[in-house]
Amino acid sequence: MSLLVVGSIALDSVKTPFGERDDALGGSAVFFSSAASILHPVQLVGVVGDDYPAHALEQLAGRGVDLGGVERAEGASFRWKGEYSYDLQNRETLETHLGVFAAFDPQIPEEFRDARYVFLGNIDPELQLRVLDQIHEPALVACDTMNYWIHGKREILLELLQRIDVLLVNDAEARELSGDWNVYRAARWIVDAGPSMVVVKQGVYGAVLYESDRLFYIPAFPLEEVFDPTGAGDAFAGGFMGHLARTDDVSPDNLRRAMVYGSAMGSFAVERFSIDRFNEIGAAEVTARVREFAELVRFDIEPDDGRLSATASAAEGGT
Amino acid sequence: MSLLVVGSIALDSVKTPFGERDDALGGSAVFFSSAASILHPVQLVGVVGDDYPAHALEQLAGRGVDLGGVERAEGASFRWKGEYSYDLQNRETLETHLGVFAAFDPQIPEEFRDARYVFLGNIDPELQLRVLDQIHEPALVACDTMNYWIHGKREILLELLQRIDVLLVNDAEARELSGDWNVYRAARWIVDAGPSMVVVKQGVYGAVLYESDRLFYIPAFPLEEVFDPTGAGDAFAGGFMGHLARTDDVSPDNLRRAMVYGSAMGSFAVERFSIDRFNEIGAAEVTARVREFAELVRFDIEPDDGRLSATASAAEGGT
Repeated sequence: MSLLVVGSIALDSVKTPFGERDDALGGSAVFFSSAASILHPVQLVGVVGDDYPAHALEQLAGRGVDLGGVERAEGASFRWKGEYSYDLQNRETLETHLGVFAAFDPQIPEEFRDARYVFLGNIDPELQLRVLDQIHEPALVACDTMNYWIHGKREILLELLQRIDVLLVNDAEARELSGDWNVYRAARWIVDAGPSMVVVKQGVYGAVLYESDRLFYIPAFPLEEVFDPTGAGDAFAGGFMGHLARTDDVSPDNLRRAMVYGSAMGSFAVERFSIDRFNEIGAAEVTARVREFAELVRFDIEPDDGRLSATASAAEGGT
Repeated sequence: MSLLVVGSIALDSVKTPFGERDDALGGSAVFFSSAASILHPVQLVGVVGDDYPAHALEQLAGRGVDLGGVERAEGASFRWKGEYSYDLQNRETLETHLGVFAAFDPQIPEEFRDARYVFLGNIDPELQLRVLDQIHEPALVACDTMNYWIHGKREILLELLQRIDVLLVNDAEARELSGDWNVYRAARWIVDAGPSMVVVKQGVYGAVLYESDRLFYIPAFPLEEVFDPTGAGDAFAGGFMGHLARTDDVSPDNLRRAMVYGSAMGSFAVERFSIDRFNEIGAAEVTARVREFAELVRFDIEPDDGRLSATASAAEGGT
């Protein structure tokens, strides 16, 4: 089933304790597409400036990303520059140049408007709403946002929440949006505000899929080497949505699988700068990692439940 | 199989955003015993002052905790006073009065020396070593420690690591001990230093069981209300060791189950002040929570693995 992403296409300059890279492919739509296209073809809508390296986008096209919705505008491309702390747990934004992204007004090509699975990357919620107005009948809409919009465009964001199915945010964003520091109460608040599900991403600690009557927890993949955390959340979204679009199945069990694909893609994203890791892997590596996740959390409840009750009763007798 | 714990018996004064309690039952050995005794009888070794409320320990005896190793010394009991931040993520120690605990020199009663499962609560590693010298032939020794000993008695702690099977520490302690901020590299460092396993507890984010060639991750139980985090780590240890002692089985699959019992007990501990929650629950509540954990992390890999490869190949063809 068709999968559409609308988001930023950027050039990132990133410094980590392990090296630095200038003007690397970045942006929410790029990380999303790089991950999702391993699972399923992607339709991408975004804008680049006239300085954007053409060959860079060609690599995406070669991997099943339809660039028919990428507008090339006059001016500079969106550039972001950041530096990570020694333990990669904090990052400082050094520079942000919106360039052509400042005037971005997403036009969904006619042939993309039947998209069934839609991911609204982190852009102005006004634009996210305008994208939805152009989509005919999506089966599932997922959406990301950030603190900047939570504070600056709260009312419009709340309106948007009533038109989406899944909000994907990190724990800090969930807390800010709900005003509650407890992640599970925050998730409940969000689901009460509109979407039927919320995915709360917790970085190295994994992610939670919250529905009003169900919870699923998937850890982050245990990596001894993390190289560059940039784009992990968008890669997660790419795995999550790519799996759903590929299987066209939003049953509870398949949503759990989608979380595992999301966590797998997030883990690949951080193993190299930019989208480099996604250029190295294919379906086989993803499948292998999904199996490793299964082993990571696997446990069986004891076959003989009677033993606990019997022993505990004996213990209650005391000695 | 016999289960022995050596650790502190304290009176805690705790203030949380939800209330405060003075001189409540606390200490590593008390939290451990309260949790473990729901699963299996416990032999407790510790010291109290002559001011310790006798009835308080009687409740433990009534639940299968053998107090034959509790020494009553002249002087004041160990008292700790602390206050938690609004989100319970940080706590400040306001007062620590070691009292009779300062001169604690654990004497293991003859009838406890055949203990098969031994938990060394967080005390001076010199004393932990002396305890081990008194145990005949333990099947499995687990041990806790803290930053104070990691800095102050590093050499002795390293000696101790070579004589234990499992180190249970939180992520900050694992980092301090190893000098590595990556939790998985830190765990590898610890296993290389002696124990065959390390359990890294990560508070609300769950816990990892690390062996040189295996990893298991169990999340913390998703609680919308956390009341008082004091003692959660010792309750975790109580669930972990209580399950192992009850089943007398240290196979990989049973160690995974022990982690689930540990996480379950940790989640009960934080639902009330002190050990109050353990006075309300029995085997049925523990079993129910273990089942909820199974549902929390459950997912099945797709039955048809072929689909991913086929679709991905199509995607590689591009559009």
